[in-house]
Amino acid sequence: MSADPAKAGATSTPGPFRVGLLGHGTVGAAFAELLAERAAEIERFNGRRPVITGVLTRTRGSFAEVLAGADLLVELIGGTEPAREYLLAAMRAGKDVVSANKQLLSQHGEELFAVAREHGVRLRFEAAVAGAVPVVRLLEESLAATPIERIHGIVNGTTNFILSEMARGSDYAQALAEAQRLGYAEADPSDDVSGRDAAAKMAILARLAFGAPVRLEDVRYEGIEQLRGDDLEYARELGLGLKLIGTAERREGGISVRVHPAFLYSGHPLSSVSGPFNAVTVESEAVTEITMSGPGAGGPQTASAVLGDVVSVMTGGARPPAPPLELPLLEDVESAFYLHLEVADRPGVLAAVTRVLEEQGVSIKSFVQRGRAAPDARSATAPDVRLVMVIHPLAESRLREALRVLAELDFVRSEPRAIRVIEEEFV
Amino acid sequence: MSADPAKAGATSTPGPFRVGLLGHGTVGAAFAELLAERAAEIERFNGRRPVITGVLTRTRGSFAEVLAGADLLVELIGGTEPAREYLLAAMRAGKDVVSANKQLLSQHGEELFAVAREHGVRLRFEAAVAGAVPVVRLLEESLAATPIERIHGIVNGTTNFILSEMARGSDYAQALAEAQRLGYAEADPSDDVSGRDAAAKMAILARLAFGAPVRLEDVRYEGIEQLRGDDLEYARELGLGLKLIGTAERREGGISVRVHPAFLYSGHPLSSVSGPFNAVTVESEAVTEITMSGPGAGGPQTASAVLGDVVSVMTGGARPPAPPLELPLLEDVESAFYLHLEVADRPGVLAAVTRVLEEQGVSIKSFVQRGRAAPDARSATAPDVRLVMVIHPLAESRLREALRVLAELDFVRSEPRAIRVIEEEFV
Repeated sequence: MSADPAKAGATSTPGPFRVGLLGHGTVGAAFAELLAERAAEIERFNGRRPVITGVLTRTRGSFAEVLAGADLLVELIGGTEPAREYLLAAMRAGKDVVSANKQLLSQHGEELFAVAREHGVRLRFEAAVAGAVPVVRLLEESLAATPIERIHGIVNGTTNFILSEMARGSDYAQALAEAQRLGYAEADPSDDVSGRDAAAKMAILARLAFGAPVRLEDVRYEGIEQLRGDDLEYARELGLGLKLIGTAERREGGISVRVHPAFLYSGHPLSSVSGPFNAVTVESEAVTEITMSGPGAGGPQTASAVLGDVVSVMTGGARPPAPPLELPLLEDVESAFYLHLEVADRPGVLAAVTRVLEEQGVSIKSFVQRGRAAPDARSATAPDVRLVMVIHPLAESRLREALRVLAELDFVRSEPRAIRVIEEEFV
Repeated sequence: MSADPAKAGATSTPGPFRVGLLGHGTVGAAFAELLAERAAEIERFNGRRPVITGVLTRTRGSFAEVLAGADLLVELIGGTEPAREYLLAAMRAGKDVVSANKQLLSQHGEELFAVAREHGVRLRFEAAVAGAVPVVRLLEESLAATPIERIHGIVNGTTNFILSEMARGSDYAQALAEAQRLGYAEADPSDDVSGRDAAAKMAILARLAFGAPVRLEDVRYEGIEQLRGDDLEYARELGLGLKLIGTAERREGGISVRVHPAFLYSGHPLSSVSGPFNAVTVESEAVTEITMSGPGAGGPQTASAVLGDVVSVMTGGARPPAPPLELPLLEDVESAFYLHLEVADRPGVLAAVTRVLEEQGVSIKSFVQRGRAAPDARSATAPDVRLVMVIHPLAESRLREALRVLAELDFVRSEPRAIRVIEEEFV
């Protein structure tokens, strides 16, 4: 144990711990302020005082100078370039790095991890997923010795806020406008509402949980733009809450990583997470399940997570992830679904629907016929009824095929709707 | 950065990582099994394979031999002696140690931390609080750079299970018997139901959060034995859930650490935690709040947390806590309270009660007069009514004085009951 880090640190005479900062926007400024505020306390328990020795912004500073003067670089630029190039250069120069950059890690993670391993430096990125909720550390460290079966996450605060508003009666456009007014959604919200932001975060978590390389492009995602108020209304009656859920799980033959709206039964640990919050549930046979929740990424939360990473580098922990494992990524996995059909109110329709579903191998778990729908464009006069059901798990491809067949029936009045359902289950 | 741990580890040719195990009961056996199962995977990402090189039980093994053959000792004996003596000897011999021993850490933590610092070894104890829920790591590492304002915790799964059963209509004795039948409570449940077990855990969390030495003897605790079914019944009507809550918080002039039953408003993150689960909410200005929840300490969960600690030592992180800060421990802090009075149903009683409360400086927030109570021993014939109210925060000493004055009024039919109320508040 003679080459041990903590011990070496404890006996050397330390100067300040020099931090180079790349990017000085909202998060960068919050980080610089928090670091200054906490430097004395960090020195008290770590023996070294962190100081910012250089800042690079779009308009000032030189990367080479910031790098040369620092023990560690903090990257808060965002986007893939030049962030990628800077991090690679820093690690190749033997410097530890901290980043909050989910785009970069979900698209170039393996390259970054490989360079970190090769040069024996640390690469920390807690703030890239779920802000100050330490889910990266949970997977990298606390559960490093535990085989993980499944992760479910609400990892995008913007969409969770919008869905919370819709659950209280707003329609999508109103809820989005409110999110923008409160600063929870950007002027162009497409990265959030399309599910792409959540997909990047799930790619990162899946890599940590399962050891397999997962890139953003490998993650199937659906957003929340297509949801309708009446889906939420029916769901409420059935005791279900609607969330945008990221899932990463082991399945027979490989792993599945995906993001989509999903109904949750009210006992599920994520069902009570409302507003612009993030939460992640990790399931494993050894520990059953652990749930962590907290605010999504705001400036102060992200800054706090980044500073936590800096401190963890100062204390000497945290290796980069091990070389990747080869695990097939599965595309077509089984889920339970909620189905919503608008059909003509005439004899024999119910029998026909159930027969078609049976022929397609769809097994109905619960079934409700709900009053009459408002007449729609295809049938301005005939009364319609709505059939709402929850079906037992089946492969998505078979569900799609069943929906295609149903849509062609002449008494089906509008596009059949299907949304996944997540039941509480302990592995 | 040359003496850096991760780097040193990456370049040396490592032999196995030798683990000595003290104690081989339920948790010790689960730990040994999990370690064997996961050894190859740990070697894959850490470069060294952990192996158990010695086991000490009450009847076999020699401490000196186990110590001599190990890089790290895992202490799963429990109790203060000989666990304390073994851990001190191991650290003085330069060995890292992992312990799951809450009694020991809450009573002799400062002594252990001081020896760890002096000898530059690591002392890890994630499993001592909340099983596999990594709250120790959250405080020691993720939030190391964040000033913490308050912790609320459900840190005893036995009492949380009992209260969950009582909320569903069981009385205390039935709920305790059910907990014992399911293995959630021991034959002698006094450490759990008295609040003492939770107090030990809160002492540990308070030390980590605030840096001040807090010993088990410093923590005021009340248990759940005195709770009655009708407290839960009224609480339900008021939308409150009842939990055994540990609190550690900064207050003007110092910190307060305590454990007591408390009513939670339904929006509180801990109010939905049911059954034998643990959960901890950490509040801080920088991150608002983070909540973590999961199963309380069972054998597999504790084993998983212990193995996570072993891995963290292998990766080189985690210094022992810094030398303690001096912070006064406050005894008499303000809380909101629920009050429950049984009074004679006659004119002027309500006015008298409110006058007494006002004289005592008690300010009523909400007030309900609830039907008639069953006649009690003091008044076998006169009809009684129950007054249930929630009062604004006041110092506990003043509440006790008000209760004393109320109890002396001739129309008060039984001992006034008071239970603390925790409102959702973000710092």
